[in-house]
Amino acid sequence: MKAIAIQRGERQLHVLDVPKPTPDTGEALVRTLRVGIDGTDHEVIGGSHGHYPAATDHQILGHEAVGIVEDANGTELSEGRIVVPTVRRLPPGADTNEYFERGEPDMAPDGTYVERGIAGAHGFMSEYFTSPTEYLIPVPDSFWEYGFLIEPISNSEKAIELAFAARSAFDWQPESAFVLGNGPLGLLTLAMFTQRREPYATFERTYCLGRRDRPDPTIDIIERLDGTYVDSRETPVDEIGDVHEKVDMVYEATGYGKHLFETVAALAPNGVGVLLGIPDDRSFDIDGGRIHRELVLQNKALVGSVNSHVPHFERAKESLATFPDWFLDALVTGVYSPEEARDAFEDDDTAIKTVIEFSAP
Amino acid sequence: MKAIAIQRGERQLHVLDVPKPTPDTGEALVRTLRVGIDGTDHEVIGGSHGHYPAATDHQILGHEAVGIVEDANGTELSEGRIVVPTVRRLPPGADTNEYFERGEPDMAPDGTYVERGIAGAHGFMSEYFTSPTEYLIPVPDSFWEYGFLIEPISNSEKAIELAFAARSAFDWQPESAFVLGNGPLGLLTLAMFTQRREPYATFERTYCLGRRDRPDPTIDIIERLDGTYVDSRETPVDEIGDVHEKVDMVYEATGYGKHLFETVAALAPNGVGVLLGIPDDRSFDIDGGRIHRELVLQNKALVGSVNSHVPHFERAKESLATFPDWFLDALVTGVYSPEEARDAFEDDDTAIKTVIEFSAP
Repeated sequence: MKAIAIQRGERQLHVLDVPKPTPDTGEALVRTLRVGIDGTDHEVIGGSHGHYPAATDHQILGHEAVGIVEDANGTELSEGRIVVPTVRRLPPGADTNEYFERGEPDMAPDGTYVERGIAGAHGFMSEYFTSPTEYLIPVPDSFWEYGFLIEPISNSEKAIELAFAARSAFDWQPESAFVLGNGPLGLLTLAMFTQRREPYATFERTYCLGRRDRPDPTIDIIERLDGTYVDSRETPVDEIGDVHEKVDMVYEATGYGKHLFETVAALAPNGVGVLLGIPDDRSFDIDGGRIHRELVLQNKALVGSVNSHVPHFERAKESLATFPDWFLDALVTGVYSPEEARDAFEDDDTAIKTVIEFSAP
Repeated sequence: MKAIAIQRGERQLHVLDVPKPTPDTGEALVRTLRVGIDGTDHEVIGGSHGHYPAATDHQILGHEAVGIVEDANGTELSEGRIVVPTVRRLPPGADTNEYFERGEPDMAPDGTYVERGIAGAHGFMSEYFTSPTEYLIPVPDSFWEYGFLIEPISNSEKAIELAFAARSAFDWQPESAFVLGNGPLGLLTLAMFTQRREPYATFERTYCLGRRDRPDPTIDIIERLDGTYVDSRETPVDEIGDVHEKVDMVYEATGYGKHLFETVAALAPNGVGVLLGIPDDRSFDIDGGRIHRELVLQNKALVGSVNSHVPHFERAKESLATFPDWFLDALVTGVYSPEEARDAFEDDDTAIKTVIEFSAP
């Protein structure tokens, strides 16, 4: 079967011919429908994130997938069911560990998991994949087109769950949120905040940071979602209070190392900054005393978050169902065949979210 | 009556003769028993924290008090009841605000409160003080000697409540805590962690940071509490993982601006750093990219916390009741009369916690 992969010692994509996988006991065989592309895939290709599966010379990419059960293999799933896979798995040959046992592999520390398509395990960018059924989330049939967005949305669901939890010891009444980053994850999160599902309904005013000139499709989306576009070249993150207002929540999805620190100044008292970006090492000078003091005297919090698991995928399904058609159409700027993979991975200002379609239901 | 105060334009203590206060409707008159001294008092004297009450040329100090109701003034309190006052009040003449209305003045932003003895209101270091009774916490009679510790303990109770809340979205099972600072607040918190009251019973291993040579009374206390002393000159905060272990919670009470950033490296995956120190501005170079990345990839959190209110004072009473006598005797290294105030404020390596006694019950 066809698989989109990278090979050791190279930094470019190939369409390989690899054996179709056979499901083990407890696993189903899934025919792949669509697999989305995100920044992590580019980091994996560039070698700054993730690692190859053991004893292979290639890594099949892809962690944002939707597929259809081809062979239930005696499991409780029905053939023909549309499913979305989670990403983390036990390392090959490893016994279970406490994080997987309690259903929280997203909280597992380094070395106790692999991530499909990212770190130590093949991804979903192939015509078929297998998975233990506990990691396959059934979704409505109508989700076959956009179900690949459930994985990135689920990462935001988890991050925001952590952020709300961090403010749960008191009567927090947030009204404003500032999304850092107008990439797909930023725009998906802005849609979560503005499509008014609990608990995000609380955000009456939303802002989204970018560094683009008008006319620009991401600015159009931000404004159609009733968000306010903030151009970081005119209004740095830590100056939003001067131009608009200090905000109750900052959601960071840029991976820019200084945003963590600028977030503290952007937050209103009792606010929380939630961090999802993965910056490289980067040293700079900061007034650390001021940042520390503001966190304390204004009861602020910062929460880092990575990955997600079944409950977050379930909530992501609910969020996806609230997104209007125009938003999904505008967000997904390209659907490519496997043979067009290199085009799908091209990153320019007209591309927002692209996806590779392996088959239709 | 006698009051210990500072005067505008000076940075030294005076024992002033001021009028005995008269309680307004809803207020009780309290005869002061003891008032503790802490780092905030030194910052107020030095001018780096707080501000004078409006239209006065002096500021009565003191925010860690215990007293006895002298005149209940028609309120529900009984005369002779031992009480501990909270610190935040509405600004003089101000209408109420949402934070006070919902019983969370500790979450109120700047400008919507004053703090007795610190910012905009006289403190409790006088023979008598008045207070609305909603801010007076009744305590057992036996607490007259050490009840002044309830205010500082309550600050830790709130901070740790925020920290546990920040980890409440998943099944967090912390085992180790690292207290930064061997001052009174650090030692009180170590006692909270080691005297095994829920939820602190979870900490099987505790560490406490100082920079003292043996023999030293704070090291003796740390070790008698079954904590491990960590000398910051040998083991910087961010190297605790190399020498001992990465920890599930870091509790910062040093006010040293770099500790916020070193805390991230000291935390185990899924850990939380809780910050109480109030550093001055201080610029330095850090690898902000690495700090940001560690917060994200290891699901870590940082929580700032200031002040406390009635529920935290109530829990602080429970914590104080668990502290062994030897601990309180060792912690409180001096009891002074008002006339000895300048001695009480002397800060050397033999003093841990000092207190001014205005009267006995």
